[in-house]
Amino acid sequence: MRYHPFALAVLVLGGTAMTATSDEGMWLLNDPPRDALQQKYGFQLTDEWLKRAMLASVRLNSGGSGGFVSAEGLLVTNHHVAADSVQKLSKPGTDMLANGFHAPTRDKELKCPDLEINVLQGIEDVTKEVNAAVKPEMAPGAAAIARRAVMAGIEKKSLDATGLRSDVVPLYNGGQYHLYRYKKFTDVRLVFAPESGIAAFGGDVDNFEYPRHGLDVAFFRAYENGEPVKTPHFFKWNAEGPKENDLVFVTGHPGVTQRLETLAKLKHRRDLTLPYTLARLRALEAALTQFSEQSPEKKRQAATDLHSAANARKAFSGQYQGLLDPAIIDQKKKLERGLLDSAYALRNMARMGEGIQPQGRLEGPDRIHDATEQVAAIQGRFAKFEKEWNLFETGHAFATPLFGMARHCVRMAEELPKKSAERLREYRDTNLDSLKFGLFSPAPLYPELERVKLQTSLTFLAEQLGAEHELVKLALAGKNPAQRAEQLIAGTKLLDPEVRKKFIAEPETVATSTDPLIVLARSIDAESRKLRTRYDSEVEEPERQAYSALAEQRFANFGNTQAPDATFTLRLAFGTVKGYEVGGEKLPFHTTFGSAFQRHTDQGGKEPFDLPKRWTEGKSKVDLATPFNFVSTADTIGGNSGSPVLNRAGELVGINFDRNRHGLVRNFVYTEVQARHIAVHCRAVLEALRRLYPAESLVNELTGK
Amino acid sequence: MRYHPFALAVLVLGGTAMTATSDEGMWLLNDPPRDALQQKYGFQLTDEWLKRAMLASVRLNSGGSGGFVSAEGLLVTNHHVAADSVQKLSKPGTDMLANGFHAPTRDKELKCPDLEINVLQGIEDVTKEVNAAVKPEMAPGAAAIARRAVMAGIEKKSLDATGLRSDVVPLYNGGQYHLYRYKKFTDVRLVFAPESGIAAFGGDVDNFEYPRHGLDVAFFRAYENGEPVKTPHFFKWNAEGPKENDLVFVTGHPGVTQRLETLAKLKHRRDLTLPYTLARLRALEAALTQFSEQSPEKKRQAATDLHSAANARKAFSGQYQGLLDPAIIDQKKKLERGLLDSAYALRNMARMGEGIQPQGRLEGPDRIHDATEQVAAIQGRFAKFEKEWNLFETGHAFATPLFGMARHCVRMAEELPKKSAERLREYRDTNLDSLKFGLFSPAPLYPELERVKLQTSLTFLAEQLGAEHELVKLALAGKNPAQRAEQLIAGTKLLDPEVRKKFIAEPETVATSTDPLIVLARSIDAESRKLRTRYDSEVEEPERQAYSALAEQRFANFGNTQAPDATFTLRLAFGTVKGYEVGGEKLPFHTTFGSAFQRHTDQGGKEPFDLPKRWTEGKSKVDLATPFNFVSTADTIGGNSGSPVLNRAGELVGINFDRNRHGLVRNFVYTEVQARHIAVHCRAVLEALRRLYPAESLVNELTGK
Repeated sequence: MRYHPFALAVLVLGGTAMTATSDEGMWLLNDPPRDALQQKYGFQLTDEWLKRAMLASVRLNSGGSGGFVSAEGLLVTNHHVAADSVQKLSKPGTDMLANGFHAPTRDKELKCPDLEINVLQGIEDVTKEVNAAVKPEMAPGAAAIARRAVMAGIEKKSLDATGLRSDVVPLYNGGQYHLYRYKKFTDVRLVFAPESGIAAFGGDVDNFEYPRHGLDVAFFRAYENGEPVKTPHFFKWNAEGPKENDLVFVTGHPGVTQRLETLAKLKHRRDLTLPYTLARLRALEAALTQFSEQSPEKKRQAATDLHSAANARKAFSGQYQGLLDPAIIDQKKKLERGLLDSAYALRNMARMGEGIQPQGRLEGPDRIHDATEQVAAIQGRFAKFEKEWNLFETGHAFATPLFGMARHCVRMAEELPKKSAERLREYRDTNLDSLKFGLFSPAPLYPELERVKLQTSLTFLAEQLGAEHELVKLALAGKNPAQRAEQLIAGTKLLDPEVRKKFIAEPETVATSTDPLIVLARSIDAESRKLRTRYDSEVEEPERQAYSALAEQRFANFGNTQAPDATFTLRLAFGTVKGYEVGGEKLPFHTTFGSAFQRHTDQGGKEPFDLPKRWTEGKSKVDLATPFNFVSTADTIGGNSGSPVLNRAGELVGINFDRNRHGLVRNFVYTEVQARHIAVHCRAVLEALRRLYPAESLVNELTGK
Repeated sequence: MRYHPFALAVLVLGGTAMTATSDEGMWLLNDPPRDALQQKYGFQLTDEWLKRAMLASVRLNSGGSGGFVSAEGLLVTNHHVAADSVQKLSKPGTDMLANGFHAPTRDKELKCPDLEINVLQGIEDVTKEVNAAVKPEMAPGAAAIARRAVMAGIEKKSLDATGLRSDVVPLYNGGQYHLYRYKKFTDVRLVFAPESGIAAFGGDVDNFEYPRHGLDVAFFRAYENGEPVKTPHFFKWNAEGPKENDLVFVTGHPGVTQRLETLAKLKHRRDLTLPYTLARLRALEAALTQFSEQSPEKKRQAATDLHSAANARKAFSGQYQGLLDPAIIDQKKKLERGLLDSAYALRNMARMGEGIQPQGRLEGPDRIHDATEQVAAIQGRFAKFEKEWNLFETGHAFATPLFGMARHCVRMAEELPKKSAERLREYRDTNLDSLKFGLFSPAPLYPELERVKLQTSLTFLAEQLGAEHELVKLALAGKNPAQRAEQLIAGTKLLDPEVRKKFIAEPETVATSTDPLIVLARSIDAESRKLRTRYDSEVEEPERQAYSALAEQRFANFGNTQAPDATFTLRLAFGTVKGYEVGGEKLPFHTTFGSAFQRHTDQGGKEPFDLPKRWTEGKSKVDLATPFNFVSTADTIGGNSGSPVLNRAGELVGINFDRNRHGLVRNFVYTEVQARHIAVHCRAVLEALRRLYPAESLVNELTGK
């Protein structure tokens, strides 16, 4: 059950834990918020409702969410989630990102070069098995290896038994481990995408803002054995959409939150990680903007890279302002204090002879103290090599997929002869198919664009570490970043997927290859692996142990009243559709087609407010009162892009695509004062498809005609 | 004479000093390169030629150069130099930067709100007097104060005696001190500016590139007592322009170079100063770009700020790549080694009894060793507080002119009661008029733009130092950067120049003012002054002493064969008009109107290649063979923008406006392999004025009709 017996007493004492009336929470499907929904909304969450939510929700491995909306494999997501595939399907002269795409018949649907989608089939708690493999007496390095091995073993066993993609996911920052089993599809075809001018109307200016006017949707179809897959579990497309104050649900795959992190970790992020990240993104965004200005074709080539960088920059800027806000830091301090206070309260109750025993190996308060200090100490150690680790092992210094490919070639030659459980985690048997699917992608790469990205990131490497740092000298090999990027990109053959396949098929050729990117990946691998080992043993594993202790104590104090931080796995959120006030002005819960045209006019029709011709010329054909975008209080974060928004009946009433800027602090704390997620209204999609595109067959499939 | 008797011997021995055939050098007008010109070009530099060059050249204190081109005060400079004034003369609905301006008659000429121009009248060497005030036994702090006092004294004496603006300028990084006397004009009126679409055709894409097509010119007229000033010394506008391989001269005010800096100083710049600078500029550029996208009016407001940031970012990026290039570092190493070798050679010659005595207080090689090591040690100390100094005292944390104004109000209240020689240098008597001219400028300021810049720079402050740094807490005063910037800009009255005047007239009101920017400037001033004192005594003064020793030794070894680094004072450069090769392609020495129209067409006419309507519609009216921009090997740098380019007869054949990217390393080393400066051709200006604008009265004044 959701409310722990002691939680209420603690709430009275501490006053800072989650209240029963908040819409906070990205809930696990195997531990759903039944009581809260019953209590606050009088809604009974049935097993049937949950089962459909699980089997009709989709994860797109390019980074987003979606949902099946017909029995024949049709799925909806955001245009900006689909953009990666739409971009890869485009070529010079055929800019489907800018101009849109529609397959009027199934044979015109376009197979995406490297899009994999996953549909969750079930979840199993394997915490005990994972933790049993890590003995208390193990040093962190050995513990990390043991944990990696047991996770790979569980996954392999599951894959062999079920044939399903099987991932062990750490939850509560390592407090629990669950095994997620997915049905996976790699034949996914593009059905419909609108023009980016209406999908991302308002561009960077309106991104993370509201009122908003984006037709940020796209449709794919999943295929199996060359046929559309049968999807009996799908979300019915609602014809009306939500009214103000309606309860709605969001089922999707929120990527990352840091709500359960300690204050020390958040301060580390604030003072080290985020400034580094912002500097990195600004450098990349500036370079891509400048590249784009050089010609319309270059603008086309860089479009998705530029949007990703700008979107991330804006999101992280909001997070950074949040962590610099003393009010937010105070709130986190109070939460941290509240956990401790509640542990003291429980101990006192126990000592007063009320028969309650605190859980855990140590007494609660001591344990919390220890774990909190441990996390703080880990940050001090991490600060010493975080930049190096990010630049080399995360690959920030080599910001081209070509480097990632070169590294896979080099590492697979070394890793695959090992037993699966002993390999670097991404090369475990259960992940190899997905990895190769990406590695062998025939998606086009543009040498000049990759050269600019690589030059920018190599320059960033030098900026961050200084020219005389050993890693910088190793990476630059006696050249400046401009010369080095030129040499690497001009010389590599890795743009050809056949060359990549050959390196994997003939791993013995890797060691003697003179391809400059292979040589680079080879030459830095020893240093890079050292950094990874150091991260695994000095940061990740000790953090998991500390957070595990905190999580146990949190369960002991509050029960399961707090959802785990986001992990790009399926979650259920809920909230109320409602507008909000900014500076005394009441913003409506939804915008309309009419207000979109108004904004276009107010801005002189200039980019990024230049509506596609189809829209300006078709204005008279649409009902201007059609609701366009709407907002609700449900708890979402990046990764939720494309998530189905559902009503009580489990029907699709919208497609989530953004938060407003007030919601950017939700990485750290949930708030519903002004903070909202933003969704495309189900009626906007139908009206646009019917009147403007027109895409009658798609409308018929959605409406079941 | 230019060649020291020992220099040739040294050249043979060391082989690394400047060769007689290079066009390197931004030469002092009181130590001009007569011999080099005679030897290489057979050109006799006469006193008359030099006098005109001096009296017809103009410094614009907004940061650039120009030259008189008629006897009635008409002066030409770059559009991008004039942009600051053009922007300040514009208002919502009247965008003269974008749309251009032309005063057909004198009464329509527009007085610039805060443009001061200076015309050099004479130079006096005051090295002995300055150095005499600094006693060897003085600690650096006392030495810095003594040096500042003697400089202020010399300036005051000169002002009183001549009525001319008098500035003591350190040359050779402190090796010499010269007194520069200027006639100054503060009534400067805008006569003509083209549309920015043709002035900066190609925008950021073509900036620092060649082939180039910019009509980067503007005309002002200097007034005195309400009448155009008589300027008998002016540059005659040549009707033909240069041919390939012609000798040309550039007379202008190059801003900053670092060619005589030691390797340790350059490495400090490479590993600390430049990465910091690039991060700062990128943050500002990104914020201004995003602000500009919000509406056409916001784009207008931010135009010059954005151009400045983008231009600086591109220049510094080129410098950074240069310092990361091992070949450049090797070249600098060899030069440093060459100075030492030549000193050893001279000592050996002396010891061999050839009667030559090394100069200087110590023996040459030891002295060079000592000074070089001193500079290196200074960098180590500087690194400990450089960011703090830049953020607080240079004001990078508060990137709005409103903060600079607030600080002037606060500091003048404290400084003006002191004796002139004891004040912070900018408040010396001889500078007060110019300072107040800027401070009381009626130029418009836009609160929302200033808020965005301030938020960006306060955020940058936190990024650089971390949220818990004392200076960050002091500046943010319990808010996050967004909230703090909002509070400061919403509350200040300093946008009104009358308010600024009142604070200066009634300095006693400063201490009790509740204007939030005044309160900010007051609250940080103690810390900021500490950083300034630390910089003066730990960096500037010891560097001056060390460089003075190096300069003396350089004179002893090489004579006056090297020009001092640039100091935004008048210099004479010379070079050959010639094209160059890139990747096997020969680039012509000039472009044409025809190639500009071609580039417009090739780029689909899209921004930044959108020629003004006047040009696209007037294409048939112009001679497409008209030379547009041309290049030469003459030695220029930022600050040279707007410099007259002259022929042997001292006639104006072009207006310098840029370098190409190969020339960006010229901050550190001169090269003429590919490196070129770029100028607007004299014929392009006449043809455009005659056929397109038309501006017949201006043409008549230029051609003396």
